[in-house]
Amino acid sequence: MLSEFDLIKQFFKRDRPGRADLGIGDDCALLTPTPGFQLAISSDMLVEDRHFFAGADPFMLGHKSLAVNLSDLAAMGARPLGFTLALALPAADPVWLDGFSRGLFALADAHDCELIGGDTTKGPLNICITVFGELMPGHALRRDAARVGDDVWVSGTLGDARLALAVAWDELTLSADDHAQAAQRMHMPAPRVALGLALAARPVARAALDISDGLVGDIGHILAASRVGATLDVDALPAGPVLARQDRALRRRFTAAGGDDYELCFTAPVANREAVLEAGRASGTAVTRVGRIEAEAGLRFVDAHGASVDLKLSGWDHFG
Amino acid sequence: MLSEFDLIKQFFKRDRPGRADLGIGDDCALLTPTPGFQLAISSDMLVEDRHFFAGADPFMLGHKSLAVNLSDLAAMGARPLGFTLALALPAADPVWLDGFSRGLFALADAHDCELIGGDTTKGPLNICITVFGELMPGHALRRDAARVGDDVWVSGTLGDARLALAVAWDELTLSADDHAQAAQRMHMPAPRVALGLALAARPVARAALDISDGLVGDIGHILAASRVGATLDVDALPAGPVLARQDRALRRRFTAAGGDDYELCFTAPVANREAVLEAGRASGTAVTRVGRIEAEAGLRFVDAHGASVDLKLSGWDHFG
Repeated sequence: MLSEFDLIKQFFKRDRPGRADLGIGDDCALLTPTPGFQLAISSDMLVEDRHFFAGADPFMLGHKSLAVNLSDLAAMGARPLGFTLALALPAADPVWLDGFSRGLFALADAHDCELIGGDTTKGPLNICITVFGELMPGHALRRDAARVGDDVWVSGTLGDARLALAVAWDELTLSADDHAQAAQRMHMPAPRVALGLALAARPVARAALDISDGLVGDIGHILAASRVGATLDVDALPAGPVLARQDRALRRRFTAAGGDDYELCFTAPVANREAVLEAGRASGTAVTRVGRIEAEAGLRFVDAHGASVDLKLSGWDHFG
Repeated sequence: MLSEFDLIKQFFKRDRPGRADLGIGDDCALLTPTPGFQLAISSDMLVEDRHFFAGADPFMLGHKSLAVNLSDLAAMGARPLGFTLALALPAADPVWLDGFSRGLFALADAHDCELIGGDTTKGPLNICITVFGELMPGHALRRDAARVGDDVWVSGTLGDARLALAVAWDELTLSADDHAQAAQRMHMPAPRVALGLALAARPVARAALDISDGLVGDIGHILAASRVGATLDVDALPAGPVLARQDRALRRRFTAAGGDDYELCFTAPVANREAVLEAGRASGTAVTRVGRIEAEAGLRFVDAHGASVDLKLSGWDHFG
């Protein structure tokens, strides 16, 4: 039986010089932020049967556990520094740990984000990551920063993850190829870190957040924090390649209120349209203008012709 | 039914100016460390039936969840800044949440440590806290810093928490008063933050860690990291007031290899004996000299007369 210390040593401790002054193995990790920078910190907890299915592929789960946290840094415009991992496991299964740690480190290395500490314990499978990044003071893309007249943008495409979930829930069927493509979006989201950095650089954008519980629910946080409203063009919402081949009603529903998208929704002054497009190009991330921030509270939808559309949708409540 | 956002607003969001530049409610919290200081970061995950009993008092659980994390900062000699809380709950029970949050904030406020963010989700009860502190570069009390000839010290008293556990496990019985006193030690540990700060100030101490899995197991981490050995006087180990009234064999066993003590074990040069005692007085924490760091690897025990004692003991392995 693998002990707690062997488990950490075998799967999580790495012999390479890192950004941290002191990494895994002491009471605390030690980290010196770049002088003059501000720390950005976020925690996400992933629970079996809530955020992933029992028996989920451990490599993809390792990827996704860190991806959802990096997505929060991206939404703030912060550069990743490191993360802690707290892990409750029903058993110390070497096959599972090997896959999980490989998926985790593949993404961590791609973003130069170092595992600096954590905790392992026995218990129902639970993955809790806290991630640290840094940014220039005043450059954070805060939810309360949207201004009337701002464009509303989203990155990448929406809804394919929700489509994969619909298959899992027997709401619809897809061809094997389509399902595989949609499932890839659900299991292996790509956190938009490079785009977030580009948007925070000047800064180009004002408010931002990452879309995890569906655009409709999540944009509501920007509107509430900024005390504004918005109108979105439902037909401008960029559908994932698989969803784009579905009928219009489904496209509208799953782009507007899908879930697990991990794209950025952000606002920017009209004067920055070209700068936003350039940030998208520089970061290799599609950006699509989907609406406008308005003084009137609430969220309204129009179609491609500007006609009002009534979408009865809401975001995901973890206790609903 | 309490929604996720109502739950956070009602029990965890506080309307008071804090140390953080941005607290709960955005994708990330923002925090500016004191210029020139180093960050200390630690995560601990508490799982029902592993770290606490099902039905545990929520106020005490809120206290203990943060206490074990602050204890890690104390062991490094860091000053608390803030923490994130990720919480998986079987249900959003307002009575439980009220007690838990009161216990949590009572301790947080006592240490001026601000809740800056986190996550809540539905799932088997799991409490994951990541805590942030800061200290002067070079002053951290690291596990690899013990030197041959150093004194070994422990703070406070050991073993009363283990005694309470023994009652819970039907290993022995105690009077109601004794049980209540021992249980208080198990449920409401006092993190030795002030002592850790005093020991790191000059610094007075060299190596330190917090004793969570029993002194014998935990001091092994200092010995391994520092490539040294130690001899401890088992009869010098300070027993808690309840344990002090038990027989010698039990006293030795539960002080040397109890668990849940959350006291500090640290080493310091012989020349700093008076400074260690002064750090204890200044922080209102008892400190007891219990042994010596030696060149010979391994951990040895002697009794009050210096005669060798064979204690067959080991620490707590979470996957054992």
